[in-house]
Amino acid sequence: MSTPRPFDIIAFDADDTLWKSEDAFHAAEHAFVELLAPYVSAGVDIKAALTATERRNLHVFGYGVKAFGLSMVEAATSLIGGDIPAAVVGQLIETTRAMLTEPVHLLPDVPAVLEQVGAMYQIVLITKGDLIHQNAKIDTSGLAHHFSEIDIVMEKDIDTYARIIKRIGVAPERFCMVGNSVRSDILPVLALGGSAVHIPYPLLWDLEQAPADHGQSFAELESLAQLPAWLAGEDVTASTTAPAW
Amino acid sequence: MSTPRPFDIIAFDADDTLWKSEDAFHAAEHAFVELLAPYVSAGVDIKAALTATERRNLHVFGYGVKAFGLSMVEAATSLIGGDIPAAVVGQLIETTRAMLTEPVHLLPDVPAVLEQVGAMYQIVLITKGDLIHQNAKIDTSGLAHHFSEIDIVMEKDIDTYARIIKRIGVAPERFCMVGNSVRSDILPVLALGGSAVHIPYPLLWDLEQAPADHGQSFAELESLAQLPAWLAGEDVTASTTAPAW
Repeated sequence: MSTPRPFDIIAFDADDTLWKSEDAFHAAEHAFVELLAPYVSAGVDIKAALTATERRNLHVFGYGVKAFGLSMVEAATSLIGGDIPAAVVGQLIETTRAMLTEPVHLLPDVPAVLEQVGAMYQIVLITKGDLIHQNAKIDTSGLAHHFSEIDIVMEKDIDTYARIIKRIGVAPERFCMVGNSVRSDILPVLALGGSAVHIPYPLLWDLEQAPADHGQSFAELESLAQLPAWLAGEDVTASTTAPAW
Repeated sequence: MSTPRPFDIIAFDADDTLWKSEDAFHAAEHAFVELLAPYVSAGVDIKAALTATERRNLHVFGYGVKAFGLSMVEAATSLIGGDIPAAVVGQLIETTRAMLTEPVHLLPDVPAVLEQVGAMYQIVLITKGDLIHQNAKIDTSGLAHHFSEIDIVMEKDIDTYARIIKRIGVAPERFCMVGNSVRSDILPVLALGGSAVHIPYPLLWDLEQAPADHGQSFAELESLAQLPAWLAGEDVTASTTAPAW
């Protein structure tokens, strides 16, 4: 007989856990490389230049589409060097605007899983990025009513999770985070004595890579659809990493 | 004998209430006009073009420096039209970065007033804008310890204040907001049955103007230094608008 896992709060990441996000960034990076190629010497790695600019700007610009847009403009300026066609800069601004206004694409089974999990546990949403963009996605996702609390934070680190766990008033060992990023959704929660379930997404931003030697073990599921069974105590973990239980 | 005003929570706006903000935007707008002037026909209102771009982008880009940076780049592209010198675009990115990293400049008497008010009431901070920029300013202001709660929100409207007031668990009539913007700090709080104190700042963003015919009366102080006396029930209101009490 399987026993439901003894959590009070199940917290969900949003980007690439509930809805697609990284696909749009990858498409924009690809378009950036195509757009810049005619103005740059062959052999220059345009994608690498963009990622280096993003990495340098991260601590000042933060996460999200507007930061990405500014980094695209800056990288284009450095790569082209002299005069830049207005059409190129205009296209980068349009890409930024399009990413911010694109309708949200839910991942498979999301509303059903939230319904099922929400019937057993209190569920909350914890996401990072642009305030206006995350709010727009939450509003248009049709998912907001599932969550007792929605937190849009600057960084998903130990301090941030500690603050949220304290405010909710839950014991860390009864808090379980579900997300696609080992760096942002899993490791800081484990460090606080909480639980975490990793559901990888095929795409992961270069700056979101976790250190390979983190040495932690945690549950990993193939898809969100397996979450209710895992929470019910069934053995559905896919993974190379050992389950947390 | 004056009687202390019967509030439980005093909430403070941050930008241009506790520290300078609009000065940097005004300086950047001025520099934008100077930077673009050599590339634009005489008679074109460069400042008006920038403000129009900001206004058009507000619902997609939101508030804050990154939104302003993207709007500067877009407005420059439209104004110049053809090829843009890389130095111009590079300068706009540098201005954006400089605004995000500029040390916070506290307004006069702020720490002393927060100390005094915080000894009598629970005080909270409610600000809108970029998550990373507001967090950086809060961290470096040395003021964070005064506040029992800090909210960085997307928009300071009735819904947002209603959510915060509900979460704090205060009766609206025992909640008082202090800020420089009639549109964002005063009118939505009055609409909920709360109180609000207006402390004008000499500069106000064009898009932050309140409708002239709002028809509300509220207390207006000349400076934050008058707030403790006002809260103590003394008659220190400056203003043409009638006091709320």
